[in-house]
Amino acid sequence: MKAPQPRTNMSNALPLEQRAEAARRAGHMLARAPGQLRTAALLKLAQMLRTNRDALLLANSQDVLNGESRGMAASFVDRLRLTPARIEQMAVAIEEIAAQDDPVGRIESEVIRPNGLRVARMRIPLGVVAVIYEARPNVTTDAAALAIRSGNAVILRGGSDAQHSNTALGHLIEQSLVASGLPPASVTVVEDPSRDVMLQMLQLADHIDVVIPRGGEGLIRFVREHSRIPVISHYKGVCHVYLDAAADADLARRIVLNAKTSRVSVCNAAETLLVHETIAPTLLPLVADDLLAAGCTLHACPQTLALLGARHGIVAATEDDWTTEHLSLDLGVRIVKDLDAAMDHIATYGSSHTEAIITDSLRAAQRFTTEVQSSCVMVNASTRFADGGELGLGAEIGISTSRLHAYGPMGAEGLTTLRFVVTGTGHIRT
Amino acid sequence: MKAPQPRTNMSNALPLEQRAEAARRAGHMLARAPGQLRTAALLKLAQMLRTNRDALLLANSQDVLNGESRGMAASFVDRLRLTPARIEQMAVAIEEIAAQDDPVGRIESEVIRPNGLRVARMRIPLGVVAVIYEARPNVTTDAAALAIRSGNAVILRGGSDAQHSNTALGHLIEQSLVASGLPPASVTVVEDPSRDVMLQMLQLADHIDVVIPRGGEGLIRFVREHSRIPVISHYKGVCHVYLDAAADADLARRIVLNAKTSRVSVCNAAETLLVHETIAPTLLPLVADDLLAAGCTLHACPQTLALLGARHGIVAATEDDWTTEHLSLDLGVRIVKDLDAAMDHIATYGSSHTEAIITDSLRAAQRFTTEVQSSCVMVNASTRFADGGELGLGAEIGISTSRLHAYGPMGAEGLTTLRFVVTGTGHIRT
Repeated sequence: MKAPQPRTNMSNALPLEQRAEAARRAGHMLARAPGQLRTAALLKLAQMLRTNRDALLLANSQDVLNGESRGMAASFVDRLRLTPARIEQMAVAIEEIAAQDDPVGRIESEVIRPNGLRVARMRIPLGVVAVIYEARPNVTTDAAALAIRSGNAVILRGGSDAQHSNTALGHLIEQSLVASGLPPASVTVVEDPSRDVMLQMLQLADHIDVVIPRGGEGLIRFVREHSRIPVISHYKGVCHVYLDAAADADLARRIVLNAKTSRVSVCNAAETLLVHETIAPTLLPLVADDLLAAGCTLHACPQTLALLGARHGIVAATEDDWTTEHLSLDLGVRIVKDLDAAMDHIATYGSSHTEAIITDSLRAAQRFTTEVQSSCVMVNASTRFADGGELGLGAEIGISTSRLHAYGPMGAEGLTTLRFVVTGTGHIRT
Repeated sequence: MKAPQPRTNMSNALPLEQRAEAARRAGHMLARAPGQLRTAALLKLAQMLRTNRDALLLANSQDVLNGESRGMAASFVDRLRLTPARIEQMAVAIEEIAAQDDPVGRIESEVIRPNGLRVARMRIPLGVVAVIYEARPNVTTDAAALAIRSGNAVILRGGSDAQHSNTALGHLIEQSLVASGLPPASVTVVEDPSRDVMLQMLQLADHIDVVIPRGGEGLIRFVREHSRIPVISHYKGVCHVYLDAAADADLARRIVLNAKTSRVSVCNAAETLLVHETIAPTLLPLVADDLLAAGCTLHACPQTLALLGARHGIVAATEDDWTTEHLSLDLGVRIVKDLDAAMDHIATYGSSHTEAIITDSLRAAQRFTTEVQSSCVMVNASTRFADGGELGLGAEIGISTSRLHAYGPMGAEGLTTLRFVVTGTGHIRT
């Protein structure tokens, strides 16, 4: 591979609408192609990421340098930066997706009606999926791989900050498709990441079936407001950990620390800790010490303040704290009367993303998993597992916090739907 | 039951937004209620339809008389009219829905990740569903029953022409919920069917999760245009029957006649007949005779005109005919070169509703069912089976011709989604 250059091939010079039409046609071909060709393209792509590692790092370093010279925040640069380890992770995710059962054309169920009619449901792709995202280059390969696996064409519009990285990745994706006999327009990397182009894209309701925005709340609100195409997204993750009366202390301490501090800038990090009042006096001081030692600031309810006392790192919680996605070492802490009060708090302030209960009570776990309304509910596990890779999807193309079409992290199956295939022997309706 | 009167109970006097909030709360309770209570409410409702048959017929006769005195079209009066047989069909549909497996809380899959984390998918309701429809009173009980089965609250806004019928049915639904210990606000029958109230309803994005409009294309476009809530719908059914080269002649004749003429006013009636050119000379004259004898007008392509000759009931097809949902005894007829040409025609002019192939060729059937993009694909069966009841859903709350969330007729399962339930033993993410 040559040092990556912005591509100037013909398809890329076409207007967006024509590229979307080409994506539609490519999607039809992709959906009809044998699953083994799509698997081959994925394995080829994983291999190419490894063999072109240095060129990818070079392209990425241009983006990183540009970002730093423009004074980009360190957390943003961190999301943008590729390393040999991250490229390896991207390749492994693609290989996991390649190893998944092929969903396209799979018969999910068949019933025989009393009149002998066979009614089956066949899994089919959605069609053309657009993904709008910000700095993380791994989204480019994750989304492309999930789309290829599920027989969908995908249009990828990454942020301008990652333009060189995405161009280089798009070139590898194109080569892997062509090498496997699949249409290169199956994956379109939009190389003009201007807002104008995004607005154009959001009007193409005849050519794009669904838009998945990934990024900050501002981006997602912008997309929702301007899109004529259905949008699947989540605004934020205000994730809760609830320490039940029957929580194991060691397990609780380990999980709270992990959920809050293992990576603060992500949507599945915990933002609020709820503690059953009977266990608070013994457990909460220990948990608070762990968190304070890790540098956290606790936004405490009055009862928590009274229990822990005025100390460095403990402030009084405001009403706003309960709905805030801090994305920092800040954590709301509230003592609640019982499981119902905890679930009421989550229903009132939560974001339908991910909630965890720490308990040894089967009854409490059952009630929590049944009654809490969020897209991911964890029992004795960190909220940080709400992630396509960790849940076995290989990667995620997005997360949905509304229940239409998909709920929670979306993998290849989330990019498909079921249709009816009915077989008779001359059946007519009387 | 007393002679049905417009209800004036307190809940009905509340503004729509407060009723929608009450529906949300009722939905939460309904979703948590044991499945057997929801089953009991359904069986009670079926029973009450039968025992209150005469009162329902009386209420309906008011609507029918009002409609006739306003000069309503006969086909509209037909859809509006209840008969003892239709009430019995409504009761049977409710009983079929009651007999279905309860989807709420069902674990659909569980995988154990390499780290021991158990990742399950639990089926849960969508929340609050609004249905906007026109004259057919059976939609009221079908939609209520599917919502109750699937743990969703439902807000039903029928047409003003069916107001007395729907009020009477709403009263029975309320009683059956109360008799089973379920919140009556689970099913809200909106008794002010003005356009203003519909517009209000379509703004309640915080309280209603999905809107399903059912009716003519005008109503559906109006809802799509004005709704701030996601809409699931279909505009029209331009359904095709394709007679393959390997079609059995008797079977083809029987199915074409059924698909076109058994009920012309419905969306799953055939609107276009495609015939493989090698079988057209022998088969098409027979099929055409059947259709002409049944009073059809055939809108024929030039090749068909040449084959059948100028006869009464045969006119030249225009380009518009291929996209028209006639809802009458009119049928487009086109001779095509082969299976690919038939599928191209469907891809170009179709509405993603329902297509049938008549063939004895396994290869042709496989290609047709895999490659045609519509929500229902039939092999050797009439398009008229594209119906929730016929497909085993008991009834349908709507039909989707776009692939987001649902595709084709939607039953109870179509009103649910899957969320992640993850169980660990203290798992943290490293």
